[in-house]
Amino acid sequence: MLSPARLALAAALLLVLRPPAPASAARPIVADKPVPSEATATARWLAAQNTWGVLSNVVSYSDGVPGEGHGIPYFYLTTLDPTARDALQDQRTSFTLSEFPLGTCGKIDPENPTCAKLTLTGKLKLVDLQSSEADLAKSALFTKHPEMKDWPKNHHFKIFKLEIENIFLIDWFGGPKPMSPSQYLEFGR
Amino acid sequence: MLSPARLALAAALLLVLRPPAPASAARPIVADKPVPSEATATARWLAAQNTWGVLSNVVSYSDGVPGEGHGIPYFYLTTLDPTARDALQDQRTSFTLSEFPLGTCGKIDPENPTCAKLTLTGKLKLVDLQSSEADLAKSALFTKHPEMKDWPKNHHFKIFKLEIENIFLIDWFGGPKPMSPSQYLEFGR
Repeated sequence: MLSPARLALAAALLLVLRPPAPASAARPIVADKPVPSEATATARWLAAQNTWGVLSNVVSYSDGVPGEGHGIPYFYLTTLDPTARDALQDQRTSFTLSEFPLGTCGKIDPENPTCAKLTLTGKLKLVDLQSSEADLAKSALFTKHPEMKDWPKNHHFKIFKLEIENIFLIDWFGGPKPMSPSQYLEFGR
Repeated sequence: MLSPARLALAAALLLVLRPPAPASAARPIVADKPVPSEATATARWLAAQNTWGVLSNVVSYSDGVPGEGHGIPYFYLTTLDPTARDALQDQRTSFTLSEFPLGTCGKIDPENPTCAKLTLTGKLKLVDLQSSEADLAKSALFTKHPEMKDWPKNHHFKIFKLEIENIFLIDWFGGPKPMSPSQYLEFGR
């Protein structure tokens, strides 16, 4: 039988050898996912818990400081990237989030409807850097994405927000859940 | 000082309390990421290693059985979902993949250019279920997404493929890497 000392060594080795959990962009524990019948809560939960999505390209975002999401995604983009350049030409866009990378879908396939997907359609607007909204957006972004504040000044990063016009949520069987932007934005107020 | 037995207990507790790694859709270990200067290899690596991306909505895909990716993403979609319905109306689409959920970006932010992003633009085409390509696509999809073969028959899932016309890869500082569809598709042949 193994001695306690050998057991300790074995357990310590296991700890060291276990692959590290993937980095999750400066976010702590994921709050509990709402039940599927609570569609608005689920949409807001996904927007608050995730830190990146697809807006033409893969981008980071934040809807508020951790634990205080407001539902509006803010972005920090450089016009060196076509995503921001395109937005200044034509603001219409859509932003898609997946629950899968949060790890809360369990062993379910990413396409399984019980693994939530949220697409917010609307207009990508520049936020005036002198406004109080820009201060809110900066703290929302920089708390969830700490490296952003050190991104090169000469890349002229700007703050953008998505003005949500349409919401497409799948979080269960039976098709998308109807939800208006005001239902989504006013949730929890 | 702690006794070896207490150390063993503490180490065992740490093992138990450590959060489980997120599920990664029936895929084994991620092969080594190519160096950033190998742009085509990086694009093909990302297409082969990832299992889901954004094609209007979040969808699963496969470019081949594990270890034998061919670069063309195949999808298994139901026309109950607007993604497939829209494709039958207008085939033009883009498909975006992120390296971030693979866990290979380390502690880097998802938007950091060294965390690879691939957008394939082109036409989404229905694959004839009687063709030999459909057999290849099915084994590519069902090996990486085992639950697909049990998805409800009455949802009439169809196989689609992306005919790639343009490739946008970011895998390092300095902007997108130029790459033609034939360079991408012929890589490794």
